[in-house]
Amino acid sequence: MAPPLSIEALFLTLAAVWLAAGLLGALAARLGIPAVIGELAAGILLGPTLLGWVTPAPTLTALAEIGVVLLLFEVGMDTDLSRLRRSGAQSVAVALAGFVLPFALGFVGAYWLFDLSLATSLFVGGALTATSIGITVRVFKDLGRDGSPEAQVVLGAAVLDDVLGVITLAVLAQFASTGQLSAAGVGRIVFFVLAFVLLAPLAAKLAAGLISGLARRHEAPALLLILVVSAVLAFSALAHAMGAPVILGGFAAGLALGRGFRIDIPPGLRLPFGATLRRLLAADPGFSQAVETHTRPLVHLFAPVFFVLVGVSLDLRSVAWTDPKVASLLATLVVLALAGKWASGFVLRLPRRQQHAIGLAMVPRGEVGLIFVQLGATQGLLDTTVSAALLATVAITTLLPPFALQVLYRLKAPRAMGAE
Amino acid sequence: MAPPLSIEALFLTLAAVWLAAGLLGALAARLGIPAVIGELAAGILLGPTLLGWVTPAPTLTALAEIGVVLLLFEVGMDTDLSRLRRSGAQSVAVALAGFVLPFALGFVGAYWLFDLSLATSLFVGGALTATSIGITVRVFKDLGRDGSPEAQVVLGAAVLDDVLGVITLAVLAQFASTGQLSAAGVGRIVFFVLAFVLLAPLAAKLAAGLISGLARRHEAPALLLILVVSAVLAFSALAHAMGAPVILGGFAAGLALGRGFRIDIPPGLRLPFGATLRRLLAADPGFSQAVETHTRPLVHLFAPVFFVLVGVSLDLRSVAWTDPKVASLLATLVVLALAGKWASGFVLRLPRRQQHAIGLAMVPRGEVGLIFVQLGATQGLLDTTVSAALLATVAITTLLPPFALQVLYRLKAPRAMGAE
Repeated sequence: MAPPLSIEALFLTLAAVWLAAGLLGALAARLGIPAVIGELAAGILLGPTLLGWVTPAPTLTALAEIGVVLLLFEVGMDTDLSRLRRSGAQSVAVALAGFVLPFALGFVGAYWLFDLSLATSLFVGGALTATSIGITVRVFKDLGRDGSPEAQVVLGAAVLDDVLGVITLAVLAQFASTGQLSAAGVGRIVFFVLAFVLLAPLAAKLAAGLISGLARRHEAPALLLILVVSAVLAFSALAHAMGAPVILGGFAAGLALGRGFRIDIPPGLRLPFGATLRRLLAADPGFSQAVETHTRPLVHLFAPVFFVLVGVSLDLRSVAWTDPKVASLLATLVVLALAGKWASGFVLRLPRRQQHAIGLAMVPRGEVGLIFVQLGATQGLLDTTVSAALLATVAITTLLPPFALQVLYRLKAPRAMGAE
Repeated sequence: MAPPLSIEALFLTLAAVWLAAGLLGALAARLGIPAVIGELAAGILLGPTLLGWVTPAPTLTALAEIGVVLLLFEVGMDTDLSRLRRSGAQSVAVALAGFVLPFALGFVGAYWLFDLSLATSLFVGGALTATSIGITVRVFKDLGRDGSPEAQVVLGAAVLDDVLGVITLAVLAQFASTGQLSAAGVGRIVFFVLAFVLLAPLAAKLAAGLISGLARRHEAPALLLILVVSAVLAFSALAHAMGAPVILGGFAAGLALGRGFRIDIPPGLRLPFGATLRRLLAADPGFSQAVETHTRPLVHLFAPVFFVLVGVSLDLRSVAWTDPKVASLLATLVVLALAGKWASGFVLRLPRRQQHAIGLAMVPRGEVGLIFVQLGATQGLLDTTVSAALLATVAITTLLPPFALQVLYRLKAPRAMGAE
């Protein structure tokens, strides 16, 4: 890790990080590409690959960690559990297929075809499982299809994939730090993570109720923001203490503070402070809305620091691109990543074009895939070659679906697809 | 300086800092006291004085510096140069009296009455010069007097005092680092600071024009925020490179991005790219409004980190409060700080009660006074005793005026004061 920067150097570095992320992100958006690709490119530009101006100094890394925790907090807030209930069994089937197939294909490909180690192969499989809710939402919205039945199915499946992906990340993170993967170990991790996943939203919901009451009594938007961010960081530290990655804390806090989240206590059940508890655990859409409004600028500002640092931490100059092994790894991973997710659309009995639409919409990996790559790289499990191939895979699978879906819907335009 | 924290420890520390700042700030506001007093108390609670949980680790210090730069950016945005022109000569007279009197009284008191060193005495004088625009604005607004003529005069004077205070801070900061105060040295500092003060807003205004154009073309609020923060940090680093404190960069950028700021190029003047320059330098209230909306949550979140760290850096346990010298220093400074500002209301020929109102409204030192204390302490010029006495003076002079003005206006209620 690089030494701490002086305040002046830190300010200049941060100014460069934000300027490059802002301009290249905007350029990407201009070209119809997700802005995150531009932010990664900014990191590659500023890092050792090209200019060599930015190194991952402690304060920058800390700001990036705050950024990714806040990003997962936002993903959690956008995750609507009731959506999963509505689209029901179809979403579950697509989610499981969209999780198992890419994981299995990625693992088998890395382990048997490329002779990578067990740990590395597991990370490769894990990195291919995620589905970016943000990007799928944007894709359907951009195409004017966000009310269609296939969009409902995909959204439910993406939600579930996110939870599965985060649990997988927790298991792999533990494995990475201890070096083993025993059944008891996995069981303990799954137990702790499930305990955290089940209890943290309850605790976060209680915290949210208290914060909401305080902020309302004092009519202080600053107080709301400060207390929410404080809670998010506290839950992230708690997640870490329970053996899960810090981001799970942000995700759980976001889940609990999201608009649709409420915990109903059965009317017959008598509890101490029952009325207060019922009030604290009820849905509070106004509060969720206020939290989203106030935290959004923070996510906008700090999430790019994370993506830029992902780019910085990749020294693409040291990758032997012309090495046939690298090229074949990249080609193989892209094919497996596409095939695994695309196939998940075909587990449902639906018209062929809807199967294609669902499968293609599941393909974007987005930020969760990148978090796998980043964690694997910092744990020393993914060397520069594998990191670069995975990053390129994430980039390609994130880039492709918007174009592919656009073409699909144009091809099928004469025969109207689903209700809108 | 403390060693870097692990991510988990940093998250817990930040969570504690924000929780304490939020709760004690809200409690202060509840009691009718400026929230900043609560945030300082949070630092005293978490720091070595009481709990000893928080030390000024590098990343915390960096976040605090970002916070104070953003705070001065907001102060700059709130600074309306045209207001100064309207209230005119009256404001200038009050500002000069409100700058010179407290500085002279503080310096003389510290140097001759308490035998403090030249450097320390200059810092003591400097710390007493500031007038908190934010607090004076709030005081008049809370009392329903923000349209009164005395409010106009005070606002203009507070603006000018801010600029004078920042220049004084720059001179003293240079003095603190070199240990001398030669006429040539002061001249050079004033030249550089004036050059920065005159040129930075022009440059920042040009940058703002570019950012505004980019953000409008891409309809991306995230881009606006990222580029503005990037510019603020770049100007702060530039200020530091020119020998001025980093906060001056934030202030200059804020001034340039404020609603009332525009630079008119005379119609007769022919310049290369004249039309583009004229467009970039015109006032852009919509853009200023958008910048304020997007940066406010950041200021809300990071400025308290600065104030908490001010509290943390004060070890009040090590102060000999019962020492007659400490008690007498505190009492003397409070009297001088009050007298110097209060007297500034009497340089104008106005009804007696308006003179009192103006003088009292000039008293609150607020954040700029604290920045003097913090800088003096980190430069080793203010020992714990003087820091504590100054901090208490800033706290008392910040606390008193809201109550005093309330009493004054109640007493005088029967005879209506000024237009409203």
